[in-house]
Amino acid sequence: MIKVGIIGATGYAGGELVRILMGHKEAEIVWYGSRSYIDQKYADVYRNMFQIVDAKCMDDNIEALADQVDVIFTATPQGFLASVINENILGKTKIVDLSADFRIKDVKVYEKWYGIEHKSPQFIEEAVYGLCEVNRDKVKGARLIANPGCYTTCSILTAYPLAKEGIIDMRTLIVDAKSGTSGAGRGAKVPNLFCEVNENMKAYGVASHRHTPEIEEQLGYASGENVTISFTPHLVPMNRGILATEYATLKKDVTGEEVKAIYDKYYADEKFVRVLGEGVCPETKWVEGSNYVDIGFKLDPRTNRIVMMGAIDNLVKGAAGQAVQNMNLLFGLPESEGLELVPMFP
Amino acid sequence: MIKVGIIGATGYAGGELVRILMGHKEAEIVWYGSRSYIDQKYADVYRNMFQIVDAKCMDDNIEALADQVDVIFTATPQGFLASVINENILGKTKIVDLSADFRIKDVKVYEKWYGIEHKSPQFIEEAVYGLCEVNRDKVKGARLIANPGCYTTCSILTAYPLAKEGIIDMRTLIVDAKSGTSGAGRGAKVPNLFCEVNENMKAYGVASHRHTPEIEEQLGYASGENVTISFTPHLVPMNRGILATEYATLKKDVTGEEVKAIYDKYYADEKFVRVLGEGVCPETKWVEGSNYVDIGFKLDPRTNRIVMMGAIDNLVKGAAGQAVQNMNLLFGLPESEGLELVPMFP
Amino acid sequence: MIKVGIIGATGYAGGELVRILMGHKEAEIVWYGSRSYIDQKYADVYRNMFQIVDAKCMDDNIEALADQVDVIFTATPQGFLASVINENILGKTKIVDLSADFRIKDVKVYEKWYGIEHKSPQFIEEAVYGLCEVNRDKVKGARLIANPGCYTTCSILTAYPLAKEGIIDMRTLIVDAKSGTSGAGRGAKVPNLFCEVNENMKAYGVASHRHTPEIEEQLGYASGENVTISFTPHLVPMNRGILATEYATLKKDVTGEEVKAIYDKYYADEKFVRVLGEGVCPETKWVEGSNYVDIGFKLDPRTNRIVMMGAIDNLVKGAAGQAVQNMNLLFGLPESEGLELVPMFP
Amino acid sequence: MIKVGIIGATGYAGGELVRILMGHKEAEIVWYGSRSYIDQKYADVYRNMFQIVDAKCMDDNIEALADQVDVIFTATPQGFLASVINENILGKTKIVDLSADFRIKDVKVYEKWYGIEHKSPQFIEEAVYGLCEVNRDKVKGARLIANPGCYTTCSILTAYPLAKEGIIDMRTLIVDAKSGTSGAGRGAKVPNLFCEVNENMKAYGVASHRHTPEIEEQLGYASGENVTISFTPHLVPMNRGILATEYATLKKDVTGEEVKAIYDKYYADEKFVRVLGEGVCPETKWVEGSNYVDIGFKLDPRTNRIVMMGAIDNLVKGAAGQAVQNMNLLFGLPESEGLELVPMFP
Repeated sequence: MIKVGIIGATGYAGGELVRILMGHKEAEIVWYGSRSYIDQKYADVYRNMFQIVDAKCMDDNIEALADQVDVIFTATPQGFLASVINENILGKTKIVDLSADFRIKDVKVYEKWYGIEHKSPQFIEEAVYGLCEVNRDKVKGARLIANPGCYTTCSILTAYPLAKEGIIDMRTLIVDAKSGTSGAGRGAKVPNLFCEVNENMKAYGVASHRHTPEIEEQLGYASGENVTISFTPHLVPMNRGILATEYATLKKDVTGEEVKAIYDKYYADEKFVRVLGEGVCPETKWVEGSNYVDIGFKLDPRTNRIVMMGAIDNLVKGAAGQAVQNMNLLFGLPESEGLELVPMFP
Repeated sequence: MIKVGIIGATGYAGGELVRILMGHKEAEIVWYGSRSYIDQKYADVYRNMFQIVDAKCMDDNIEALADQVDVIFTATPQGFLASVINENILGKTKIVDLSADFRIKDVKVYEKWYGIEHKSPQFIEEAVYGLCEVNRDKVKGARLIANPGCYTTCSILTAYPLAKEGIIDMRTLIVDAKSGTSGAGRGAKVPNLFCEVNENMKAYGVASHRHTPEIEEQLGYASGENVTISFTPHLVPMNRGILATEYATLKKDVTGEEVKAIYDKYYADEKFVRVLGEGVCPETKWVEGSNYVDIGFKLDPRTNRIVMMGAIDNLVKGAAGQAVQNMNLLFGLPESEGLELVPMFP
Repeated sequence: MIKVGIIGATGYAGGELVRILMGHKEAEIVWYGSRSYIDQKYADVYRNMFQIVDAKCMDDNIEALADQVDVIFTATPQGFLASVINENILGKTKIVDLSADFRIKDVKVYEKWYGIEHKSPQFIEEAVYGLCEVNRDKVKGARLIANPGCYTTCSILTAYPLAKEGIIDMRTLIVDAKSGTSGAGRGAKVPNLFCEVNENMKAYGVASHRHTPEIEEQLGYASGENVTISFTPHLVPMNRGILATEYATLKKDVTGEEVKAIYDKYYADEKFVRVLGEGVCPETKWVEGSNYVDIGFKLDPRTNRIVMMGAIDNLVKGAAGQAVQNMNLLFGLPESEGLELVPMFP
Repeated sequence: MIKVGIIGATGYAGGELVRILMGHKEAEIVWYGSRSYIDQKYADVYRNMFQIVDAKCMDDNIEALADQVDVIFTATPQGFLASVINENILGKTKIVDLSADFRIKDVKVYEKWYGIEHKSPQFIEEAVYGLCEVNRDKVKGARLIANPGCYTTCSILTAYPLAKEGIIDMRTLIVDAKSGTSGAGRGAKVPNLFCEVNENMKAYGVASHRHTPEIEEQLGYASGENVTISFTPHLVPMNRGILATEYATLKKDVTGEEVKAIYDKYYADEKFVRVLGEGVCPETKWVEGSNYVDIGFKLDPRTNRIVMMGAIDNLVKGAAGQAVQNMNLLFGLPESEGLELVPMFP
């Protein structure tokens, strides 16, 4: 039985980790870390866990935690893990970090987009970017996993095969992404109030959202080019779900069958990626509560562009589900253990 | 492995049966009956099932179906099962009926509230009302289970212990219930359109809703009296969830602790009933996607009344989950097999 | 032109006052008071007012304000007005108070339910409870109007004619009310976040909500009895709207026509009360954005009860609209000036 | 007093025409045409109009109607007006057509995208495309107005000044648009049911939506080039609102101030266009219920692109409001008569 500690267990991503791990046969949570709710019963913070989780919330003492567990999930604000990680901790336990601290290889890029100094750049190189479908083998031997962001997971996987195969002109790539509100976290801020979000829609972080360099770096590896994209996130009045609509000019004449074949080449054996046929538009509801990425596309001969579309549940494949998928790889378990979550509809 | 057939697999309750049974270790669905979608792939009707269910939809030939399965779930309109059931079918297979056909023991009451003639009154007596927490032992030996309605499951379980113990004056019982829109089914009707339901709330079926006599009959058994209640359902702009707020005058002086003790007497060992403390109001979101019933209450000395509150997911404990719970009892399986569903939040 | 000052202009009720007064021909706002946003442009707080309102937010100095305006609306927390009001202010300007400070005649009842000391009990007697349909004549000559609460407006008007005519047994009255989330205000609190409210429903303040004594006092005047009711508010995932479902035992044998006639007797000439026929259930969406109260009812001979239902927009008839209606009466204007708001659907 | 007839008065756009015209001082509706509800009271179809509209629904006999009114609004399916219009009708009355029949000058383009034969191509040339901010002078003298589509109004006005001034490379223009569900109409179809739309998001009509050629034609006039764009509409779980996010490569080095100045050049005197500052993202809620278009933008030097964003209420500026604006121009009334609608928030 893998012993699990969570730091940041009372945010939405942390709560989803708990939900998923309750159904995992080989893991048990022994530390529900939450600085805001120390000593309160976890089930008093998330009442859905009443009579399921009896534990109280613990602090975020990662040194103490490292002695007790096999793996730590950090679902914490940017900068936290970088400020506390050290060789001693990594010698005792694996870490799957749901924050952005170790996602970006170029520390200057990190510091520029996140506006904070990176306190542990020495661990950046060894950290493995935990996009399992792309980096599966590297994940298996890692000590420190940088779990991808929600927008980035969806955006990268949707374009990855076509970027890798050189089908699309990377200079033309535009990612217009839409997210449910759980992505904004559980902080008590006026813009996240029900009455402000409900019956409303807006873009935010235009040309400046911090997931941009992460997408660029990964698609840069895939395409072998420096990639600079337009990325625009939007807030949608729903709890869960990300839909990424991506536009790129085609570099080659391709048919829908050929594009489908390329997607299948990369994803046919992937448990959690479902390639829909050409012209089938993914819907966020079809993946809700599950670890799936649904991908569709449409060729547009009029503009010589392709429109790629991907949908995920931001809290599952976009956060906690992928984190558990990484944990499974780290410990040699079946990759889908605990993740056989059937999407809930309606 | 229990072989399962579903008639009405493409309604919302049918879809939820499929979702739940996908996670059931001892059951497999061999017949996805849907008159409206015969020969279409089930996953084309419910895209969340893409790459999970490969089968096509079948017709509703219950005779043919009975030869192939151990249990049939009928998630069909009122009157369907009564019009086709016979001794031959019941000799071959168990039936869990999610419609109202066999819920009410007095056929005249059924015919009055449902406005149709009952075609098979000879099976009413043997049918067991499948409210597991109340009728567990009877369920185990049955051939035909009348799976309770969604409002009724929530309304009955919320009041049951106090009715049974004679704490409340049954003549004063008022049930004000609120339901998400999936309870209205998947029929294409103007009042169920997004724009008609969203940002809106209304009562409907006031003093005439067909779940009324079902609640009255069951609480009549519990209290040993003829029970006549006010029951008002309301439509709420959310997909899932029923909240029942119930009012009754107290017959005895009781404290909150005493009331809590009565609830615990009946439900402490019940896996799927969670009794919250006095003054804790259940929320539908805390049970979403799960088979739980959450129950809270508040004494009001000013009016000498008690306010009881219950919350369920109408598609799980109010339909498909309870149906699977009944199936588990019928086949001697652990009652919670396939039903260890952790509520999803947010 | 009536000069208007608002204290608390950046809460939801304050914002709605601004929206309504923009369309009022005889009034102009000269003071947008908002302690939280002093010196910020009002249109930066509420972007819908961009290029409509140019003013900046002012402080809550009611003495200075009283010198400049004909009427002050206080959309402030409980206790604010009572702590600052004095004879000097009332000598200069009218006040319409949207808080609860002067709604309840018995100061002990106020202090018990609100848990604060009343700082100006000397003005309670002269304050007029501004439920225009009931107290129109008194409003006209008042200096200080206690604008009714949102739940109370809906609850009282729905039952008022039957209480007044002695048709219903007041001891049996139960009010089960459901409200959109704008009623919870614009404070940044976790329970009001989108993800906490959306797809969720709950009761709150059971047997203890502060609108209870207000309803009791007013229906007590109507019926000539001491009235003690069960009142249960619920939070619904929508922005606007209150639906009150009210239950009472009938004291007399009445037909639906007779009940309709009683409602018509009181409301046929009321511009803002629309009496629907028997069995027609009001929906909150039908009154959204308007000052209407829609009222329906259903007799239930089985239980000898009547179910009364009322719907309002909590921010209009439940707050700002009614406040403007009171202002119109205070200044001898047509009662519906600025309030000819057609409900918006969908 | 202008006498108005509406054909298609019971669709959502028709209902919004009624709502707006109720507040119009110079117009009165004398014909509520609705084939589906002939002889039923209009207020029984839209209960919000109870005690506001007393009329019954009439048929769609446009010949009879033309004798009685000064202007006809046709809020009808594609092809209806083209199949009935004739010189005789146009001799008697003005027509504002909310369908697409006369929006596109090239009949072949119309027939290709709409898949139907155009029955009255002889009136296409004289029809004026009723985008008031662009074609104001032409509208004034017209007999037949082609009222723009909802997506198109938002998409065109957002890009128009920059297209006109040659700032952006029209070959790179991508419009990613998101719409509330009222744009899908009031037809009873499964995909428009509450439970299918709520908590869900999807693209549809990718590279094939019928508003595409309309945008291309108008922006072609503006830029003086043939324009071919990528246009992707999305369905969002809200009632009202369109947000268009538009991407284009810059042809010139421009600063944010220069771009703002260009927008101001075209829109500073436009009552219904509000130009927000650079980096201010419009939100659909800020224009809800009003005739405003809110426009913001952001320069992205990294990609040499500009992101333009526009928000409207699809039923007002995207349909009924703009239709009334056209009517005002046709009859020499103040352009904003009946349209001084303050956006409703929340």
